Amino acid sequence: MARPPIVTLTTDFGLQDHFVGVIKGVITELVPNVQIVDICHTVQPFDVFEGALTIAQAYSYFPNGTVHMVIVDPGVGTARRPIVASTEKHFFVAPDNGVLSLVYDREERLSVRHITADHYFLQSVSNTFHARDVFAPIAAYLAKAVEPDRMGEEVHDFVRFASPRPKPSDEHTLRGVVLKIDRFGNLITNIMPEDAPMLFEPQASNFKIVVGNRQITEIRAAYADGAPGEVFGILGSMGYLEIAANRGSAAKLLEAGKGTEVSILLGDATAAGSGQ
Amino acid sequence: MARPPIVTLTTDFGLQDHFVGVIKGVITELVPNVQIVDICHTVQPFDVFEGALTIAQAYSYFPNGTVHMVIVDPGVGTARRPIVASTEKHFFVAPDNGVLSLVYDREERLSVRHITADHYFLQSVSNTFHARDVFAPIAAYLAKAVEPDRMGEEVHDFVRFASPRPKPSDEHTLRGVVLKIDRFGNLITNIMPEDAPMLFEPQASNFKIVVGNRQITEIRAAYADGAPGEVFGILGSMGYLEIAANRGSAAKLLEAGKGTEVSILLGDATAAGSGQ
Amino acid sequence: MARPPIVTLTTDFGLQDHFVGVIKGVITELVPNVQIVDICHTVQPFDVFEGALTIAQAYSYFPNGTVHMVIVDPGVGTARRPIVASTEKHFFVAPDNGVLSLVYDREERLSVRHITADHYFLQSVSNTFHARDVFAPIAAYLAKAVEPDRMGEEVHDFVRFASPRPKPSDEHTLRGVVLKIDRFGNLITNIMPEDAPMLFEPQASNFKIVVGNRQITEIRAAYADGAPGEVFGILGSMGYLEIAANRGSAAKLLEAGKGTEVSILLGDATAAGSGQ
Repeated sequence: MARPPIVTLTTDFGLQDHFVGVIKGVITELVPNVQIVDICHTVQPFDVFEGALTIAQAYSYFPNGTVHMVIVDPGVGTARRPIVASTEKHFFVAPDNGVLSLVYDREERLSVRHITADHYFLQSVSNTFHARDVFAPIAAYLAKAVEPDRMGEEVHDFVRFASPRPKPSDEHTLRGVVLKIDRFGNLITNIMPEDAPMLFEPQASNFKIVVGNRQITEIRAAYADGAPGEVFGILGSMGYLEIAANRGSAAKLLEAGKGTEVSILLGDATAAGSGQ
Repeated sequence: MARPPIVTLTTDFGLQDHFVGVIKGVITELVPNVQIVDICHTVQPFDVFEGALTIAQAYSYFPNGTVHMVIVDPGVGTARRPIVASTEKHFFVAPDNGVLSLVYDREERLSVRHITADHYFLQSVSNTFHARDVFAPIAAYLAKAVEPDRMGEEVHDFVRFASPRPKPSDEHTLRGVVLKIDRFGNLITNIMPEDAPMLFEPQASNFKIVVGNRQITEIRAAYADGAPGEVFGILGSMGYLEIAANRGSAAKLLEAGKGTEVSILLGDATAAGSGQ
Repeated sequence: MARPPIVTLTTDFGLQDHFVGVIKGVITELVPNVQIVDICHTVQPFDVFEGALTIAQAYSYFPNGTVHMVIVDPGVGTARRPIVASTEKHFFVAPDNGVLSLVYDREERLSVRHITADHYFLQSVSNTFHARDVFAPIAAYLAKAVEPDRMGEEVHDFVRFASPRPKPSDEHTLRGVVLKIDRFGNLITNIMPEDAPMLFEPQASNFKIVVGNRQITEIRAAYADGAPGEVFGILGSMGYLEIAANRGSAAKLLEAGKGTEVSILLGDATAAGSGQ
């Protein structure tokens, strides 16, 4: 059977207003058989990086041809460009502020266009709600199989920031950071298995993970393997080292948040204490 | 291709319970190919005006023939009537408590009926969840193209409240009010461009907007045009004057909320101070 | 017209992360014409009983053949089994931790299978996100009409807990408990009409409902029948006695929460005071 077109939504609009409903109205009006899928609407207001992280974790699970609308847009109404990015399998509609940076990182073939075809926009374009007036209709026409080259010229100077990577501070110490706290209070760090492979070996030992003044010395395979009250490391489903607790919030237990430093001490460094 | 029927939902049911899921079950059971679209479920409990504002901002973006279920219903189980309102392009199902008032304001052709056709209801009607037992099945049958005149007799004494309008307190002063705070902390006032056209002229000056003990003297074209920490006025996407801050919450900066008075002082009045 | 397959989602994943979006991606990829319906994603983290209560209240309103994914899974990645439960009309996919207990209570015909057919899983199965890697694809294949007997062997020792029932503490006193607080602050107790039929007779009197140090002596037919500030009993739409207030939160007024004891004193016991 024919697959209906899919448009996903990732925004910082929250769920308390009419914003998301309006966007769905605009898309539905233009694409009768569309499937609209909410990825997340509670990206922290104006937090472009959190939006980038969210869409990067989700988009690849959707079918070929999916159109992803990603709107975290503190510069709405200014000169920042609306863009459409095409990868091998997906389309993305977003402001050109870096919110697609982590998608760009994952894609080899990539074409980014500056949306200028204003005949696709709603008839009256506000200065404060381009998701409704610009991005939703563009997403809709992409879902109707209008080609991106009809939307505007290709650009190469699109905004792209580097995801923060852990840095060695000396031979035995790696300094990472908490990218986000998830719903369960897990600390999602920016440390990947290749950054500290020793951590994820069977019976790993001779390491310490330091968060604030707390030293973590256990890596668990599953959340439920943690002892009550214990804070431990775990390889999370996002592909990063997480700091977690069994049926509890590591963020609360450690009083940690987005941006908190997470250090890995390996080998000799572990004898040196937590670096306090 | 044939457009599937659409039912939108605007409620104060929140997202923490089974309520919304149950409504969707009832509608899906009755209309196999329905598209159900959430407009908003986090209208403040019992806040009929906020529900009215939400649906009024969203409905017109949906296709012709859309059925809008609007349930903010503190009087559920009492004598307040369930109604179906038909406009030129849309259907609305709601309790008759004024929650459709701002829709009525926008529509010239309007027919409101008291729903009495209880053979459409679920077999057992509770006193506390008419959204499930009464409104969802009625919305479903409307989506299946059952005509509103099958639902009950037309009424003319339906409840309709007037949206609060700004009032001149003297020749040069207009007193308005904050209708709502949006997710970003913007204050949505009830002041429209036609109420104070001078404010929205290019290079507007000789005006003050007063909120509490704060005087606002700038109108910006885009949120990002505001200086850091600055609170300014802006014509928002809802068609009202908003009080906003760039990447910040004007509501927090001004300690303002729904119902806070917003005054516009024009011309000579601006010399008189903030009226403190 | 042919009914598209329906998959409902009930989880404790919240709405702040990519989790729910990812699940929808996986299902949509596998079932092009699927209708995915959110029942609730804000079950309290790890609260298996609240998940059980939520799905039990909602599932029966959905059409025959609906697949319900119910994921509150603190044991993810451990030996707890993934299961598919088939009832006369519905399918359920869940961890075997009791989250389907209240569904089991409502169904006479029931078959539970231990999901072992890992060729249906995503190619790489994480230890922390089986909703994505195991449950979503299994739900998708069920939605595609793959029979449950293809998923694994039937089991009879599945986890099933008893819903807490009110207990008589003496001839005239019934001790119940608050199962949950709903969005409006209503206290949903575990007391059903058959437990205390006298309460729901017309002009019931000679009873007291005791919550903390507060005595409640009124049963109302509708929320709006309550006097301002009054706390009263009402037969709620979930089939349980609720403690409620008109346009207010009984939970706040009584400082009560999940687990708070609710006692019913009948006849002579009402003269004995509140048992303080």
